[in-house]
Amino acid sequence: MTVSDPSPWALLTDLYELTMAQTYMKEGMNGRATFSLFVRRLPPDRGYMVVAGLEDVLRYLQRLRFSSEDLEYLRSTKIFDDAFLSYLEGFRFTGEVWAAPEGGVLFANEPFLEVTAPIAEAQLVETYVINQVHLQSMLATKAARCAWAARGRRLVDFGLRRTHGADAGMKAARSCYIAGFHATSNVLAGKAYGMPIAGTMAHSFVTSFPEEIDAFRAYARTFPDSSTFLIDTYDTVEGAQKAAVVAKEMEEAGHRLRAVRLDSGDLLALSRQVRHVLDEAGLPYVTIFASGGLDEYQVADLLLAEAPIDGFGVGTRMGVSADAPFMDIAYKLVEYAGRPVLKLSSDKVTLAHRKQVYRRSGPDGRFLEDTLALRDEALNGAGEPLLVKAMEDGRMLGAPPSLEEVRRRFREEFARLPEQHKALREAPAYPVHLSPGLADLQSRLERELATPGGRA
Amino acid sequence: MTVSDPSPWALLTDLYELTMAQTYMKEGMNGRATFSLFVRRLPPDRGYMVVAGLEDVLRYLQRLRFSSEDLEYLRSTKIFDDAFLSYLEGFRFTGEVWAAPEGGVLFANEPFLEVTAPIAEAQLVETYVINQVHLQSMLATKAARCAWAARGRRLVDFGLRRTHGADAGMKAARSCYIAGFHATSNVLAGKAYGMPIAGTMAHSFVTSFPEEIDAFRAYARTFPDSSTFLIDTYDTVEGAQKAAVVAKEMEEAGHRLRAVRLDSGDLLALSRQVRHVLDEAGLPYVTIFASGGLDEYQVADLLLAEAPIDGFGVGTRMGVSADAPFMDIAYKLVEYAGRPVLKLSSDKVTLAHRKQVYRRSGPDGRFLEDTLALRDEALNGAGEPLLVKAMEDGRMLGAPPSLEEVRRRFREEFARLPEQHKALREAPAYPVHLSPGLADLQSRLERELATPGGRA
Repeated sequence: MTVSDPSPWALLTDLYELTMAQTYMKEGMNGRATFSLFVRRLPPDRGYMVVAGLEDVLRYLQRLRFSSEDLEYLRSTKIFDDAFLSYLEGFRFTGEVWAAPEGGVLFANEPFLEVTAPIAEAQLVETYVINQVHLQSMLATKAARCAWAARGRRLVDFGLRRTHGADAGMKAARSCYIAGFHATSNVLAGKAYGMPIAGTMAHSFVTSFPEEIDAFRAYARTFPDSSTFLIDTYDTVEGAQKAAVVAKEMEEAGHRLRAVRLDSGDLLALSRQVRHVLDEAGLPYVTIFASGGLDEYQVADLLLAEAPIDGFGVGTRMGVSADAPFMDIAYKLVEYAGRPVLKLSSDKVTLAHRKQVYRRSGPDGRFLEDTLALRDEALNGAGEPLLVKAMEDGRMLGAPPSLEEVRRRFREEFARLPEQHKALREAPAYPVHLSPGLADLQSRLERELATPGGRA
Repeated sequence: MTVSDPSPWALLTDLYELTMAQTYMKEGMNGRATFSLFVRRLPPDRGYMVVAGLEDVLRYLQRLRFSSEDLEYLRSTKIFDDAFLSYLEGFRFTGEVWAAPEGGVLFANEPFLEVTAPIAEAQLVETYVINQVHLQSMLATKAARCAWAARGRRLVDFGLRRTHGADAGMKAARSCYIAGFHATSNVLAGKAYGMPIAGTMAHSFVTSFPEEIDAFRAYARTFPDSSTFLIDTYDTVEGAQKAAVVAKEMEEAGHRLRAVRLDSGDLLALSRQVRHVLDEAGLPYVTIFASGGLDEYQVADLLLAEAPIDGFGVGTRMGVSADAPFMDIAYKLVEYAGRPVLKLSSDKVTLAHRKQVYRRSGPDGRFLEDTLALRDEALNGAGEPLLVKAMEDGRMLGAPPSLEEVRRRFREEFARLPEQHKALREAPAYPVHLSPGLADLQSRLERELATPGGRA
């Protein structure tokens, strides 16, 4: 099985998806339903979201089957009847998906994707669809903030040790690369996604040698042209001095030390001292790489203070999106059997009907405003539509774009997002309007629901 | 492949584990190393940790092999030489593991486990070992806090939609069950771990019917003896009234409505109103189940206010450990080739040497204090040793305990933890001392490292 093969995941779903599906079957409810996947409010400090996870969702939908082992387990629960289990035996997803492409930029209430299918099918896939788009878009958004803060400096994903499990470690690497990171430490991500991998050495490596300088010499013997020495195991400035000694030895042998890494302490003060040590030793080409509890906030602060740091390894806080480890994402029924549908629960009103998102740009290409509209509404001057049909009759329409293409799309779209929305804190809300058609429909439906007798 | 089969994960490692291993090989460093896995400081508000993840770690270590496809990829990176690739081709983990059993309770600086093996082997496994113990112990700890706050009420894991990926969704379900949850919504977890599954209905189910009451009737037809109605789609109190109507219809047909679920709004006020509606209708047996953005803090507040809620679904905040989405966990070299090892980086001093943890209890069985000691130190009266040998020569010593046994161990150990350490906020630190042997060794080593010339 490859990492992106979702077929073992048919049962990776909430039980209620299956109990509801059985009820739809029993009731003869096979009308087409449209579900819309969107974030109600952006997480704290976020001015935008980066779309990721669509490729996994489409592959999942296309390959989704229930194995005989799956069916045997479901039968053993005594929750399901034979008719429903027979239905699952022949199950395949036959629906349609409209989606915003991976690497694009979206805002609150704008659909990542909309699924239209017989209601049991569209309901059954909810859990995995939410799980993957939520994780990957949350991480791509966090990564985009880190990349923006790093202003073009080298960025490496170091998150794998503390991402929430193996799947998150893979998706973090991919999401970071989409958002402009240069490499990941995750070797399997390098293999699976064809992205660059990078690595240095750990403190354990240094402490396994009797003396710190022995560790540097040993590593340089193995990697004479690609060494980064970790210099903070005992005393960072002394570590820099020893690194300089070994770097001069490497020069004599016709090689060059690539970088030193700081992983603890006051990175601003230490990076200045270390830069001084390296420059004094005639090693201006040896770069300084910093890591240790970093995310976009620390990176921005360090660069604002002009820390002489050439690259960053961001790990845990990036890999778990520590300041915002979840988003308020929902997969909501917006249409059933031709009838627009909404929900009024206290603080969770949803917008009815299949939708399209239009984006208007200025003459310089900068984004000006979005309009959330009915899918079939004729709108003049609202700009480019963002959602494209990605799947029909359960089949992907064309191969998904390559990871490099997704990365390029992000770079291009992000360049068109006005700067104020990229701020790390208190970014102003980007303007998203409702179209006349959607606004009219919504107020009519809310009025009907609020009228006594409008709903028994 | 089964979910717990780690063999596809040989490359799920940080690149530096491999570059360091190649350097160890080239330098002829094949001495035995001991790495210790521990948390430096407990996350905010935590007074204890619950151990989880050991079974996955042991299975990973026992099955770890590099496939020919893995080796082909590594060769293509041009980072590794033929000798090292040959070593990986024949790789198997041959080391020893001492570990605290799953379901146990631990504190800061106490090892979850210690790995002893030829240094390249012990180093190579770092990433996956950290990743799994970190995730699972973090989630089991969060779950234990939720279960403690719920004071015996029914608790169901609803996290899967927003856990960080598929792996985290599986491990969240298992960790919750260890810590006393009653069930999970995750069907695959039910199949893989043999644990109970549970589910109700979504708002989309309700909105797919023209009228709310039609949705309740349809569900009751399919599940006449196991229905929970979601009543907050439009107006919660009106929803309760309709649920009562259908419940009386069910009674007439010889069935019983099991519960109603609230998923939004002021859960305290609404649960009181809903209880009143149900009681007035002569439905005292219909229980109230609450969900929607809950974790231990909200559950505790609701029960303190005596909300008439009989069970809770905890989802996102539990599944991502939202208030503490990572722990300060480290896998540190503490001994190499018979030499105790430590690290002095600014704020990250480690304790040298292989260790054992002893726990002293009072006559009532309550835990009194722990002592962190040298593994081979003779200690009188320090209590029971916690770390047991779980693997030798790369083979598990006996089958891992069943999930039910792990769950039982948690229940028993947690009952022995003094109440003040279970507080959700500002729990006092549990006393963990250093043994005389460990304290002496540590101060000697720190003195040696601090002496100019003590390390070149």
